[in-house]
Amino acid sequence: MVGGPSILAADFANLAEDVRRARDGGAGFVHFDAMDNHYVPNLSIGPLVAASLVPRTDLPVDVHLMVDNPDNLIPMFLDAGVASISVHPEAVTHLHRVLGMIRAGGAEAGVALNPTTPPETLEWALPYLDYVLLLSVNPGFGGQTFIPETTEKIRRLREMTDLPIAVDGGINAQTAPLVVEAGARALVAGSAVYKGDPATEMRKIIESGRRAAEG
Amino acid sequence: MVGGPSILAADFANLAEDVRRARDGGAGFVHFDAMDNHYVPNLSIGPLVAASLVPRTDLPVDVHLMVDNPDNLIPMFLDAGVASISVHPEAVTHLHRVLGMIRAGGAEAGVALNPTTPPETLEWALPYLDYVLLLSVNPGFGGQTFIPETTEKIRRLREMTDLPIAVDGGINAQTAPLVVEAGARALVAGSAVYKGDPATEMRKIIESGRRAAEG
Amino acid sequence: MVGGPSILAADFANLAEDVRRARDGGAGFVHFDAMDNHYVPNLSIGPLVAASLVPRTDLPVDVHLMVDNPDNLIPMFLDAGVASISVHPEAVTHLHRVLGMIRAGGAEAGVALNPTTPPETLEWALPYLDYVLLLSVNPGFGGQTFIPETTEKIRRLREMTDLPIAVDGGINAQTAPLVVEAGARALVAGSAVYKGDPATEMRKIIESGRRAAEG
Amino acid sequence: MVGGPSILAADFANLAEDVRRARDGGAGFVHFDAMDNHYVPNLSIGPLVAASLVPRTDLPVDVHLMVDNPDNLIPMFLDAGVASISVHPEAVTHLHRVLGMIRAGGAEAGVALNPTTPPETLEWALPYLDYVLLLSVNPGFGGQTFIPETTEKIRRLREMTDLPIAVDGGINAQTAPLVVEAGARALVAGSAVYKGDPATEMRKIIESGRRAAEG
Amino acid sequence: MVGGPSILAADFANLAEDVRRARDGGAGFVHFDAMDNHYVPNLSIGPLVAASLVPRTDLPVDVHLMVDNPDNLIPMFLDAGVASISVHPEAVTHLHRVLGMIRAGGAEAGVALNPTTPPETLEWALPYLDYVLLLSVNPGFGGQTFIPETTEKIRRLREMTDLPIAVDGGINAQTAPLVVEAGARALVAGSAVYKGDPATEMRKIIESGRRAAEG
Amino acid sequence: MVGGPSILAADFANLAEDVRRARDGGAGFVHFDAMDNHYVPNLSIGPLVAASLVPRTDLPVDVHLMVDNPDNLIPMFLDAGVASISVHPEAVTHLHRVLGMIRAGGAEAGVALNPTTPPETLEWALPYLDYVLLLSVNPGFGGQTFIPETTEKIRRLREMTDLPIAVDGGINAQTAPLVVEAGARALVAGSAVYKGDPATEMRKIIESGRRAAEG
Repeated sequence: MVGGPSILAADFANLAEDVRRARDGGAGFVHFDAMDNHYVPNLSIGPLVAASLVPRTDLPVDVHLMVDNPDNLIPMFLDAGVASISVHPEAVTHLHRVLGMIRAGGAEAGVALNPTTPPETLEWALPYLDYVLLLSVNPGFGGQTFIPETTEKIRRLREMTDLPIAVDGGINAQTAPLVVEAGARALVAGSAVYKGDPATEMRKIIESGRRAAEG
Repeated sequence: MVGGPSILAADFANLAEDVRRARDGGAGFVHFDAMDNHYVPNLSIGPLVAASLVPRTDLPVDVHLMVDNPDNLIPMFLDAGVASISVHPEAVTHLHRVLGMIRAGGAEAGVALNPTTPPETLEWALPYLDYVLLLSVNPGFGGQTFIPETTEKIRRLREMTDLPIAVDGGINAQTAPLVVEAGARALVAGSAVYKGDPATEMRKIIESGRRAAEG
Repeated sequence: MVGGPSILAADFANLAEDVRRARDGGAGFVHFDAMDNHYVPNLSIGPLVAASLVPRTDLPVDVHLMVDNPDNLIPMFLDAGVASISVHPEAVTHLHRVLGMIRAGGAEAGVALNPTTPPETLEWALPYLDYVLLLSVNPGFGGQTFIPETTEKIRRLREMTDLPIAVDGGINAQTAPLVVEAGARALVAGSAVYKGDPATEMRKIIESGRRAAEG
Repeated sequence: MVGGPSILAADFANLAEDVRRARDGGAGFVHFDAMDNHYVPNLSIGPLVAASLVPRTDLPVDVHLMVDNPDNLIPMFLDAGVASISVHPEAVTHLHRVLGMIRAGGAEAGVALNPTTPPETLEWALPYLDYVLLLSVNPGFGGQTFIPETTEKIRRLREMTDLPIAVDGGINAQTAPLVVEAGARALVAGSAVYKGDPATEMRKIIESGRRAAEG
Repeated sequence: MVGGPSILAADFANLAEDVRRARDGGAGFVHFDAMDNHYVPNLSIGPLVAASLVPRTDLPVDVHLMVDNPDNLIPMFLDAGVASISVHPEAVTHLHRVLGMIRAGGAEAGVALNPTTPPETLEWALPYLDYVLLLSVNPGFGGQTFIPETTEKIRRLREMTDLPIAVDGGINAQTAPLVVEAGARALVAGSAVYKGDPATEMRKIIESGRRAAEG
Repeated sequence: MVGGPSILAADFANLAEDVRRARDGGAGFVHFDAMDNHYVPNLSIGPLVAASLVPRTDLPVDVHLMVDNPDNLIPMFLDAGVASISVHPEAVTHLHRVLGMIRAGGAEAGVALNPTTPPETLEWALPYLDYVLLLSVNPGFGGQTFIPETTEKIRRLREMTDLPIAVDGGINAQTAPLVVEAGARALVAGSAVYKGDPATEMRKIIESGRRAAEG
């Protein structure tokens, strides 16, 4: 079980420093939320920020594309040196090809599922996937709480595939054990990390997940 | 005559520090390029980054919206405390209303003109504008050189209005005097600032503009 | 079993009167078809008409949104005092959130399924739904006949959930018994109501449904 | 000088009655605002409502299309029997053809200009136009006040053409004389008509305009 | 088992001749790929080319619509005299209606499935379909190899329906037997036909498929 | 004065032959109309057809892009070896850049103006243009007659620039002299060429234009 901070919750004026702190707490990766104000109603960060961040950390950078038509952005993120990229099937007409483009660029390819998107949507994409990202809140909107059906969706996915499952949204020391018990292997933590000391908070979340994994 | 760095050219992992350096060179504002991968084929930064940056600098933050349908983003940028916002007329159906929304939020309202957009497009918006931003390269694409017709466009605009004119694209110590002589009052400098020591480079550009203004 | 008229078939110059007549025939609700000429190729009526209608009738007003991107319209319909709102999953990227927005505004939340949309699409939205609306013709086009597979789709949905199922399209005294027997609990009747005396026709349809429900 | 009520401000549950009252006050036409929630952020009324209204009044019905891609709606409005249709040039790619389609259907063809749209936009469409509609507020948004530059725009248009000019937005007994003096020949009055007794209010507005025309 | 050439691979300056050659090799139909640079990132050919081609060949012309919003193109292709038309469900909001429109025009109606689209998507459209087209490469992109999961998808479809299944993408004398064994009844061959003598190459592919069908 | 046939009016099953015939009548170029069913409501031909045609004729091929977002198509047409490409300003957000892309690929860059588009739109693009294409009918729709204001628009353009002006739409032996007298230097002839013997008809049109040019 690994966890990583969503840099959306970090201080963008001192990004390298905030990522370093989460790493001190044991973060295994950095989660990067790209929003384009079309697929979701907010604009966040893109390839230029990724290109600044990657050389400043030894953690792998995982990009979650909440954008319509990501075809032109994927090569820019690959050039920036990110480790993995996930896309939303509703935003990608030619999913097989986009996943292949990500892998051909040397990164891992993932698909992100919205809260009400059925896991069966992915069935024919599984051979081309390296991981699945389950959204446990609605992507692109703040202030939401963990959607409880997520644990059941993890179990359903587990029956379909052995691919690693990551969960993103409302993850903290209380919800982390729930999704880890259900089979999630990676946790994305947002505001819970940066509400206090990032190293301490990151450690709490990872610790709570680890106990669930071992229990 | 004032100048300011485009933070697109800065180090996003240490943004506060890079802005500080440009300020040491005399920068009078910070230029913030928001791109949504729809109006232009790149995704840059949005309101969350602005909200991190504004409290870390005493320079006013000037936002250039290279986005389609900016209606929902403008309130977020206003909440972040930015000083001014410019929009592209091709991307805004109800320009009179959008300019009023920016002013009602306490910021200055501007319009950005692409290289081939005629200044006459703005005639009926002038009473609702605080400044005009002239693009002297194509917005959203890198590695371009200054478009020479910009100086003539500045002169044409000067005949239409007394509003301050800012110029963005390919500005360096060679091109700054050209646009200042033509009547530009603010300069946005991009890669020229961060190619060497930001304070030194910013100073050179501002100095070259000042001499032209006085000469 | 309840039935209600689609006001699309009524006289828009005397709407209050036409709704009153259907109510005299036993209508239990009013069905309101909002079309935006994008999700369907026709433009019908929106929140302003709903705001005029709601205070003139004691029947609950049920809105069927045949529109792309309904996010900004939902608050207007809620302000107008409607009782329920259904959306099309193809037209809503963040379904979980939109259903929550409808419920938070005090209305019942529904999803409308096009004739060829599989019921399984809804599986993960069921906890956030108050009813399902099955389209038994293609929405937004006139002069169509009842699609016979609708009865089988009702049965499939019945296996998935106990939520009330409404049926809309080609409902008259002949087709009403078919869908009621299959498990539908609400009927939307369009042109069949206003082809003659609305009270009489509404009564015939409801009566035919009731006999099927009891039979 | 003629005036007419915008039925957007009327009671949609008793439309025929509300139009009758404005007619009693001297209204010379009915103004019909069609909005599609894409060109403007609101959904109002479409061809079905026009088809109900036209046979209930002897006033000509004038349709203002605040919609993207109106090509398929124009034949429906023509079938409904409306007298005139205006379109927005920003929403129509093939303006020459659309104006021809309106005229071929037996209606008058108009173009509607947003507050910041220059009149010169129309120069090459003038031979295909029967009237121009100037928006003196932003279309599709409520609660706005009359934009004062409208009078200057009327004068500019008068130099370009003898076509009748209608003005829509914030028209009441105070603003009507201003636009009539500048050369407007038709006034669209919205909330000012239905704030009190429609016949009385309509009469006041028309009277104020007439005095200006004669003065 | 029948096979036909995709005319995308033919010489467009001598289309009639190239089709004749494939026919000499036993082609049973002509496959016509319409691309609109929106559903796929390429622009190919449309109704005017179909209208030129149909009268020059006695083979049936089968149109594969890789276009968004095909509603207005379908009547033009029907007028051109094509024998069958397939659409992509992701590009058609009202699938039941579009399939009915194709059949009403006297052509066979098909649905085309992208590599990762689940066959279950079609379940409720089956009564309105005459055939299914499985894409064994990503439509609209060149230089791809046959996707091996296609054979499994054919088997899955066979369990759902007896409709004829056509396969398109990467079909040659090596892959043809694989899809025929799995149950495909029609093969679309592209570059493999026109790499050498069209009659010879077409014959090889059909022969390889026939042996598999009989084996 | 030169003229060329629009291949839209030719026989697509024998394109090379039909182009040869027009050339025998003196055609100086071939006009290629690319339509994408989005900018105009028809789908015609794209880069693959151009790539077949260019090597079969020694006439330069001139492409008129009636498409939205042509950025990805331009490199394909350049690879096909076309001699010139024109775009519509309403369909291109970054006109300066697109014109530069065409020139950088070794082709001439043009802009096409719809019947009601003012010539002043082009003022700031003139230094980046090699020719202007005036549409004298609405692009993408058949069966239209020559718009008479075209001659005045040619004169207006002549005052702005010395660039060659081409005219497209409704050109025949009657209208050709009108536009040549007004200053057009190239004529695109459509159905008039292929209504009879292409060589004869092409010759008549060119001859009528030449006499006007000399007269």
